[in-house]
Amino acid sequence: MRIIDGGITAAKGFFATGAHIGIKKIKKDLSLLYSEKSAVVAGMFTQNIVKAAPVVRNEKIVKSGKKVKGLVTISGNANACTGKQGILDNQKMADIYAEMLQVNSDEVLTAATGIIGKEMPMDIIENGIRKISPQLKEDRQSAKDAAGGIITTDTFLKEVAVELELGGKTVTIGAMAKGSGMIHPNMATVLAFLATDAVISQELLQKALHDAVEITYNMISVDGAVSTNDMVLFFANGAAENEPFTEDSEDYKKLKDAVLYINQKLAIQVIHDGEGASKLIVAAVTGAKTKQDARKLAKAVINDNLVKTAMYGEDANWGRILAAMGGSGGFFEPETVEIAFQNEKGYLLLMENGQPIRFDESKALEILAERDIIIHISLHNGTDEAIAWGCDLGHEYIRINGEYRLRT
Amino acid sequence: MRIIDGGITAAKGFFATGAHIGIKKIKKDLSLLYSEKSAVVAGMFTQNIVKAAPVVRNEKIVKSGKKVKGLVTISGNANACTGKQGILDNQKMADIYAEMLQVNSDEVLTAATGIIGKEMPMDIIENGIRKISPQLKEDRQSAKDAAGGIITTDTFLKEVAVELELGGKTVTIGAMAKGSGMIHPNMATVLAFLATDAVISQELLQKALHDAVEITYNMISVDGAVSTNDMVLFFANGAAENEPFTEDSEDYKKLKDAVLYINQKLAIQVIHDGEGASKLIVAAVTGAKTKQDARKLAKAVINDNLVKTAMYGEDANWGRILAAMGGSGGFFEPETVEIAFQNEKGYLLLMENGQPIRFDESKALEILAERDIIIHISLHNGTDEAIAWGCDLGHEYIRINGEYRLRT
Repeated sequence: MRIIDGGITAAKGFFATGAHIGIKKIKKDLSLLYSEKSAVVAGMFTQNIVKAAPVVRNEKIVKSGKKVKGLVTISGNANACTGKQGILDNQKMADIYAEMLQVNSDEVLTAATGIIGKEMPMDIIENGIRKISPQLKEDRQSAKDAAGGIITTDTFLKEVAVELELGGKTVTIGAMAKGSGMIHPNMATVLAFLATDAVISQELLQKALHDAVEITYNMISVDGAVSTNDMVLFFANGAAENEPFTEDSEDYKKLKDAVLYINQKLAIQVIHDGEGASKLIVAAVTGAKTKQDARKLAKAVINDNLVKTAMYGEDANWGRILAAMGGSGGFFEPETVEIAFQNEKGYLLLMENGQPIRFDESKALEILAERDIIIHISLHNGTDEAIAWGCDLGHEYIRINGEYRLRT
Repeated sequence: MRIIDGGITAAKGFFATGAHIGIKKIKKDLSLLYSEKSAVVAGMFTQNIVKAAPVVRNEKIVKSGKKVKGLVTISGNANACTGKQGILDNQKMADIYAEMLQVNSDEVLTAATGIIGKEMPMDIIENGIRKISPQLKEDRQSAKDAAGGIITTDTFLKEVAVELELGGKTVTIGAMAKGSGMIHPNMATVLAFLATDAVISQELLQKALHDAVEITYNMISVDGAVSTNDMVLFFANGAAENEPFTEDSEDYKKLKDAVLYINQKLAIQVIHDGEGASKLIVAAVTGAKTKQDARKLAKAVINDNLVKTAMYGEDANWGRILAAMGGSGGFFEPETVEIAFQNEKGYLLLMENGQPIRFDESKALEILAERDIIIHISLHNGTDEAIAWGCDLGHEYIRINGEYRLRT
């Protein structure tokens, strides 16, 4: 696998573009994707009971197994909690883009992100799609424009692309994602879109995506809030013309690793760009009795407001880590817990055999002053492990979220 | 039932005091309670796996059904995550106070609140208890001193007292509590202590306390963090000499109502004084399919960081309320939801039959500018209901928690 410079158009036969059409004040708010060849598509969707209109519609199309050719995403309006009108507006958005691509409506997926509960500005959206569709291109800049069109409070574009050899053919996967608040995915995520030219069955594509999402997007959190709009879509149009492969093949293993790499990279980018985040906090739990315990504990630590504010304040308040674990519902024995901080500045043990250790405060401060901090938690209760990624909680989060709707 | 001016010494035969002994820099950090007559005691304790030393010891004594005579509480050090030394130190704290009261060690309960994972300053504690114990008194000021000795980041004392007639005798209940962060009780709370002179069996005392805690402390949250030190203790020394009563008597009903009143009053005081809180947010869910659904939904709303920051920003972002409900695991049908804001400035419907309503933004702003806001959520899925109390999330929470350990 080789990491290459590229985004959503990196794989053969994918065209994209993005632009500002007037939903938001200044920033790009429309993103279009088009596959020349019909593509199989896999998807993971939010488990929030309240699903935005695009989530409901896409889930149906993905489950039907039908091939698709396009994706239209708007940012600035989530089309969530918009009732029946929202469903009609979402369908109309698909219809217009399908008309421009000269394909069937159900060959077009939709996505939206932004303010919840606000009516869609359909005139702006219709005019925007009609005006921007002719600009679809395969080049690097168009991928960047498309990545720009899906973001909201993000401060940088999130793109990854890799190449790998499958059965002698070069296969490419390109991807883009958006954060950066309301991030606490549950069987899904933020918006993330992957596009590959690999020949692959929808079933295997779905499996590769599902397995990667479980240990990437589903293990990150910015603020513990499960979004109404989260989804990851993975398109495969077969333009690379590799030989088809099965689940137990070496080719599938290679593709699976590449998909995991991409999703992990995007997930960490989302956390690095978490709303108001100044630090990336990684909770690495080892020695858990079960996988589920390890996941619960790791997620509880990165979700705890007191741990997050302590990290923001660069305060080695490890007691809050233990307390967060204790309240998580995940099993562990406090008597055998080991907790340490680590990053490039060093490794510092804070607790061993459930007993606090007198540590060097200046060393702790040195480690915590860095942007990336790993919290190692060794339970000695078994052999299962999990990693979760989160961020600190500081003034910037309050500023961004205290008046989001009025400001946007 | 009559509300009277008083605190933990309001009931006959209870003595208290509080002072600064040097655990904290300036504020009071020791609180002592003494009952002349042996008292039955009921208790509710945190469900965090990681329990502070006093929680473990008290739970054992309360479950044994033994009568007790004293309670010593320190603030500034939680004696949590302190390993074996913490257990020894806690026992020693009980021993010293028992010696001063000339009672057995297991007639003395202990409590602690403050920094987690810090060794107890036993010299200061020993000298402090020996010096302050002789000051135990029944008067109003001593109750205030005791209430002052249990608080940490609280900005005001939390006290309540009531009188009621049971079988022709006047019975009094006095109480005190502390907040104000790490508040997300689970079958317990914050520290809260109640003392009554009623004659009552330990079994009934436990039942009255349990039932009240379930719908008061267990329905409040400041920051979603489950404390290692939460407990509510309820002492009854029988000094009022009322006739004993059974669970189906009118007297028990009266007492139960009084206990509920006291706990609700204290719980709301805790939220009003939530760390950095500027607003009290009440989520009132009606029409739920089950009690459990109603509780889950109400708690999810007051716990959601995005709802909390919106309330801080006085932004009528009701979509975040619906999204928080959807991610909670509680059942409801989005199609029948009704959401409204209410307080003394009026009532404002935001969503009906799952459809957004165009509302008057200036009216919303007027309501949200107030300190207390009720969020009414009518589900139309059944007849169960629940109320949860929370607060907003603003800059002050970050300031307080970003450097708590280094500052204290």
